[in-house]
Amino acid sequence: MKIVLIVCDGMGDRSTKALNGLTPLQAANAPTFNRIASLGECGIMDVISPGQPPGSDTAHLAIFGYDPYTQYSGRGAYEALGAGIELRPGDVAFRCNFATVNNEDIVIDRRAGRITSDEAKILADALKDIKLEDVEPIFVSTTEHRGVLVLRGERLSRMVSDIDVHEVGVKIGKPKPLEDSKEAERTSKILEEFVSKARKILENHPLNKERIAKGLLPANAVLPRGAGTLPNVKPISELWDIRAAAIAGGALYKGVAKALGFDIINVPGATGTVNTNLKGKVDYAINALKTYDLVFLHIKATDTVSHDKNPVKKKEVIEWISSGITPLLDFVEAQDYYLVLTADHTTPSEVGEHRGDPVPVAIVGPNVRKDWTERFDEISCARGGLCRIRGADLIRILMNYLGKVPLFGE
Amino acid sequence: MKIVLIVCDGMGDRSTKALNGLTPLQAANAPTFNRIASLGECGIMDVISPGQPPGSDTAHLAIFGYDPYTQYSGRGAYEALGAGIELRPGDVAFRCNFATVNNEDIVIDRRAGRITSDEAKILADALKDIKLEDVEPIFVSTTEHRGVLVLRGERLSRMVSDIDVHEVGVKIGKPKPLEDSKEAERTSKILEEFVSKARKILENHPLNKERIAKGLLPANAVLPRGAGTLPNVKPISELWDIRAAAIAGGALYKGVAKALGFDIINVPGATGTVNTNLKGKVDYAINALKTYDLVFLHIKATDTVSHDKNPVKKKEVIEWISSGITPLLDFVEAQDYYLVLTADHTTPSEVGEHRGDPVPVAIVGPNVRKDWTERFDEISCARGGLCRIRGADLIRILMNYLGKVPLFGE
Repeated sequence: MKIVLIVCDGMGDRSTKALNGLTPLQAANAPTFNRIASLGECGIMDVISPGQPPGSDTAHLAIFGYDPYTQYSGRGAYEALGAGIELRPGDVAFRCNFATVNNEDIVIDRRAGRITSDEAKILADALKDIKLEDVEPIFVSTTEHRGVLVLRGERLSRMVSDIDVHEVGVKIGKPKPLEDSKEAERTSKILEEFVSKARKILENHPLNKERIAKGLLPANAVLPRGAGTLPNVKPISELWDIRAAAIAGGALYKGVAKALGFDIINVPGATGTVNTNLKGKVDYAINALKTYDLVFLHIKATDTVSHDKNPVKKKEVIEWISSGITPLLDFVEAQDYYLVLTADHTTPSEVGEHRGDPVPVAIVGPNVRKDWTERFDEISCARGGLCRIRGADLIRILMNYLGKVPLFGE
Repeated sequence: MKIVLIVCDGMGDRSTKALNGLTPLQAANAPTFNRIASLGECGIMDVISPGQPPGSDTAHLAIFGYDPYTQYSGRGAYEALGAGIELRPGDVAFRCNFATVNNEDIVIDRRAGRITSDEAKILADALKDIKLEDVEPIFVSTTEHRGVLVLRGERLSRMVSDIDVHEVGVKIGKPKPLEDSKEAERTSKILEEFVSKARKILENHPLNKERIAKGLLPANAVLPRGAGTLPNVKPISELWDIRAAAIAGGALYKGVAKALGFDIINVPGATGTVNTNLKGKVDYAINALKTYDLVFLHIKATDTVSHDKNPVKKKEVIEWISSGITPLLDFVEAQDYYLVLTADHTTPSEVGEHRGDPVPVAIVGPNVRKDWTERFDEISCARGGLCRIRGADLIRILMNYLGKVPLFGE
């Protein structure tokens, strides 16, 4: 018995004027989504807790059955794993932006004029020259202006403040310890040293001089944020004695899954954007079900268009996903496997940010309590047989179907 | 964006024979209540937890987003604040009744023949003469036979037993420490001293001699109960960075709100009874929305008629409230604000006491997930888009709509 868990990022929404008072899911013509609702049992899900807006990282921790309140250890680690760095216990990892700062170190552009991935790679290579006492810095560029920094050494702490404060017009600050410990103080100093040395190397880098000559913004600073360490948890594979695989475009989602013991399946053209190779991801998911007990399929596009505040486009993306996953539902039905369709959080397309409203969820599979829900949307699913559940309960509910949850008591 | 939170006390009920098997809400002709259900998202709410009958104090703690299991510190403090006493940290406050006891100190009437508020005030003034070593007693009469005692001094504890045991025919007991601490023991002794000194003053008071001469019961004893201290919590205004105001007739509700950082708006004629100035309260609520982000409007009458075991009268009170709040709903709709309609607990009108059944809840406002609920009652709302929530989650759900809940994770 096997499960495919489809998470459409930020798909939950609210009643929207642009869609005549419907949510994008309600407005969408999404026959496969509705077939899932009709075949299965439906409900709504507080991914973290009622009214609590989840981050992408904590949301997935919860959906994979981990308690984000006790088992979250910062975003950086997931980014590093997603970027392919083999993180070790003790490492402290940061998300980074290449940014443009002026002579007074005031941030002009947090994305350095959106430098290309190729340019970022050249600059990242130059940062390899940085030496820090005691600690080894590992810097990798990922997509466009984005990168990851790992500090590897003894006595480091993730309790240090962000350098990137998500604002322009402010001077890049010094990292501060967020707790009263020698480790946090030491890590702050080391991080400051890295940022300062990176600043010098980048300021004088020929690539940046070329960019300035062309009238482009130089990528003359690295701004780390989101310090994180490997979460100290049992892998999902061990917890439930299953083989688990993850298919995702975005590095973060791969990173969370990897940190929790999923194997990562890379799909060519899976970009984590609206132009992703959805067909490829679906084909790989079907194939993965031959080997794995649990296949996590992450689709980012719904969140992207939500952040763009485009409810009409969100409706279209929903229709595109519904159509794209049809072969997967067909396969699951033919094999009598389980399929779960849900979202990791609500991103109201009139707000453009994560919010704490519950998300719809439907579970198809042998002998699930088929309810009367006929449409997959926030309001229809609320009347379904699952009522209102918590994100952290989902995996246990699924493992219960697989007969994997040990009896409590006798 | 602003919110008005309407709490009709004890409005939740059960299927009732006197109403042909309907609940009072189901039986009522309450078009504005039903308009709220139709416009909004509905659900049912376990104010504390499923099956747990809430007190009026713990219910409101929960509805305001505080955990009653860890943040409740006794009723007395709320009564004292509601009576206008500026309570200080360390003070221990008690609800009190003027009562009639016989020569053997056996309670004959817990309400001293329901003496008038004016009489109670005269007696309360006489109690000002009481001196206690180390500790300052503050006694204030409130409505009819009711009053509040505050013990102000060092090393006091709220862990002392009630003197009023809600029974007649029993001797007034001595207060006992409820925990093994010097503070609780000391407070018990001081309380005993106060009760004993009050007993002597009242026995000999001319007003009581007059009452006896007229054949009325004398108010010759004070019976404290419900020791409480100020809750050690962050005010709601600080927690969520909002301006919050409360409109209520009953002192308790004002007291709870004040303890949690609400400003209290006093409305002439707001009595906390079925004869309250509902129009005035609604007018003041509309006005308060100009200044405040969250306006709490408490209406007591539904509970009063429930305690009187009068389901037919309860239906009528519901119709009266529904009609009375119409201008408030009109205003909220025009302004695109949020309106919440709910109850603080179920008081079944065939039982006449608080019970632990969930209460209906509806939230109207911009972009809430409008569901198919068309009537505001316990059964219709249970099929709504909110499903079943907890009282302590309500404020976070509302603050999520205001965009006031910080992201957890990234």
